[in-house]
Amino acid sequence: ITKKVLMLPGDGIGPEVMRQVQRVMDWMAKKRDINFDVTEGLIGGASIDAHNNPLTDETLADAMAADAVLLGAVGGPKWDNLPFDIKPERGLLKIRKEMGLFANLRPALVFDALVGASTLKEDVVKGLDIMILRELTGGIYFGQPRGIEERDGVRFGFNTLVYSEPEIERIARVAFDMAMKRNKRLCSVDKANVLESTVLWREVVERVAKDFPEVDVSHMYVDNASMQLVRNPKQFDVMVTTNMFGDILSDCAAMLTGSLGMLPSASLGAADETGARKALYEPVHGSAPDIAGQDLANPLATLLSFAMMLRYSFDLGDDATLIETAVQNVLKGGLRTADIMQPGMAKVSTTVMGESVINELNKL
Amino acid sequence: ITKKVLMLPGDGIGPEVMRQVQRVMDWMAKKRDINFDVTEGLIGGASIDAHNNPLTDETLADAMAADAVLLGAVGGPKWDNLPFDIKPERGLLKIRKEMGLFANLRPALVFDALVGASTLKEDVVKGLDIMILRELTGGIYFGQPRGIEERDGVRFGFNTLVYSEPEIERIARVAFDMAMKRNKRLCSVDKANVLESTVLWREVVERVAKDFPEVDVSHMYVDNASMQLVRNPKQFDVMVTTNMFGDILSDCAAMLTGSLGMLPSASLGAADETGARKALYEPVHGSAPDIAGQDLANPLATLLSFAMMLRYSFDLGDDATLIETAVQNVLKGGLRTADIMQPGMAKVSTTVMGESVINELNKL
Ligand SMILES: CC(C)[C@H](C(=O)O)[C@@H](O)C(=O)O
Ligand SMILES: CC(C)[C@H](C(=O)O)[C@@H](O)C(=O)O
Repeated sequence: ITKKVLMLPGDGIGPEVMRQVQRVMDWMAKKRDINFDVTEGLIGGASIDAHNNPLTDETLADAMAADAVLLGAVGGPKWDNLPFDIKPERGLLKIRKEMGLFANLRPALVFDALVGASTLKEDVVKGLDIMILRELTGGIYFGQPRGIEERDGVRFGFNTLVYSEPEIERIARVAFDMAMKRNKRLCSVDKANVLESTVLWREVVERVAKDFPEVDVSHMYVDNASMQLVRNPKQFDVMVTTNMFGDILSDCAAMLTGSLGMLPSASLGAADETGARKALYEPVHGSAPDIAGQDLANPLATLLSFAMMLRYSFDLGDDATLIETAVQNVLKGGLRTADIMQPGMAKVSTTVMGESVINELNKL
Repeated sequence: ITKKVLMLPGDGIGPEVMRQVQRVMDWMAKKRDINFDVTEGLIGGASIDAHNNPLTDETLADAMAADAVLLGAVGGPKWDNLPFDIKPERGLLKIRKEMGLFANLRPALVFDALVGASTLKEDVVKGLDIMILRELTGGIYFGQPRGIEERDGVRFGFNTLVYSEPEIERIARVAFDMAMKRNKRLCSVDKANVLESTVLWREVVERVAKDFPEVDVSHMYVDNASMQLVRNPKQFDVMVTTNMFGDILSDCAAMLTGSLGMLPSASLGAADETGARKALYEPVHGSAPDIAGQDLANPLATLLSFAMMLRYSFDLGDDATLIETAVQNVLKGGLRTADIMQPGMAKVSTTVMGESVINELNKL
């Protein structure tokens, strides 16, 4: 089989972590007869530098034509002072919106070998395995009206948080499906005691719940959720929430693991008649401009994002598991990039880490 | 001197923790010649039960006439299924808005004796002392338009996040003043890469910063702030942010301490010509309906809220310090209510904890 993949290395460490994925793709072609037809494109700062635009129509067309997109990271101090409308982030928001990637899957997983990296006590996070589902194309990120305006000599900044029933329903369905494949517990996070938009959210989640009687569903206010993530994160299985709350809570959950450099993510669109979905995969970590180009970055989150691609876009769950197992074995073997370095372990470069994953794959 | 205080015990454990404050007030009258003219009122569920209204005009008038208000806690399962408009929370939001309490001070403090209660490792939180300043009468909590509406057969829920320049400026000034009295570091939290409302927020904070050249000011996106609180909370001194972000981050920060039962808060209005401010003080913890009426609740957060009242409303910083020291001494002496119980310590009731604070006050 051949899969069309668009690679968008982006900025900072994006290109170097992406090169390690290319290796694994080559390995899969050779050993598993799964071929990738790879196109490369620009996004974020790299695209601003080349085209004065964080996401060109051409890149977007390539993304729409691909079976899946793999993104490195966008942004960096070089572009921080650009006006709001042409910042690197705009490229990311636009590609999500245009591709209709409404479901953002953000696992927060603690690898046994790295439990010590967390700032939380070992018993609180050992074995942690949460899936946060963040709505990604609606809510206050995209609501109209928005802007900064002067009225009677006073300036106001405003944004609109808006969700329609169908928007809530489709993300809720993904969440319940996900819960069914996991431990059948779903916590929906809202602020229904203050925000009417999330009163509707809660109501729709309740209604969808009727179709999933096996799932144990609960509702939690966002302030309490941010406490509970710190108090006892293992109480959660799947969490589903709005775009803005998901942005905040998924980063909090990611940091509970202590190893951001290990966390992948997936952003999925609606399934078409054939069951195929538009999809974009990216590591949770940022572009880390301070270490870019030095062969220091941790490529594992990007490799695990590629594994998610195999699982969710190509229905190649076994191959995804192969990569995930190889990553775990590399960690068990004591290899660490700088960001996850621990006493007594062997510090390795981006390249060596990538090579070691291939070596482990060869042993499986 | 005599100070007019309105006490609003509210729901759940509110009344019993409030009784311990009454004791300290009596002690202050006797030993320090500071007298409190106390009125009691209803709010939240208690007011709904009596008047079918979470905040009556009468209670509001009492609040406006008082020098300061002390609140216990509001809410509980009994009122959870009431319609949005007459829930207990509505009383709290209304009193904040009507009294103009735009500045919510939420310290996150780790007491040396309780450092083990945190789910975070000791070195990460020992000595933690953050002050979070949350804007409390604006933003998405109060913005118009809001509601749930049907358009072309589809229901939408919507809320408006709006801040005017003067609203941002006044909270920013409180934040910089606070930073000047502390370690002169201020972190303003926004989502200026996505929300125009917080582009204006950042701009105004930058402008106010010019009046406080000694304060080291930084800006952080809210998702990163929620990570940094978990990664290394001691990097922060004062944080200032919007109503919604403050709700989430201050609860996260509170939970880092591991002992919610210890955390006070203050909500302040603008200073009038005489320098007096409207003010409401309340513990961060909720109404804990599961243990209400059993003499099990921790009264220390409410006592510390009362200490904040002495400091911020009555300029009685020395007396505030007396209470804070008494609380610390009680903890050092090994007394604990159930919520902060540790091996080898003595478990005591709400009443005994209150008495012990008085005993310590007598020794100071
Ligand atoms: C870069 C930014 C616009 C983006 C977001 O807020 O969605 C990022 O924080 C993320 O979570 O992917
Ligand atoms: C009860 C609720 C309305 C309130 C808020 O969101 O402001 C509470 O969470 C708080 O932080 O005081």
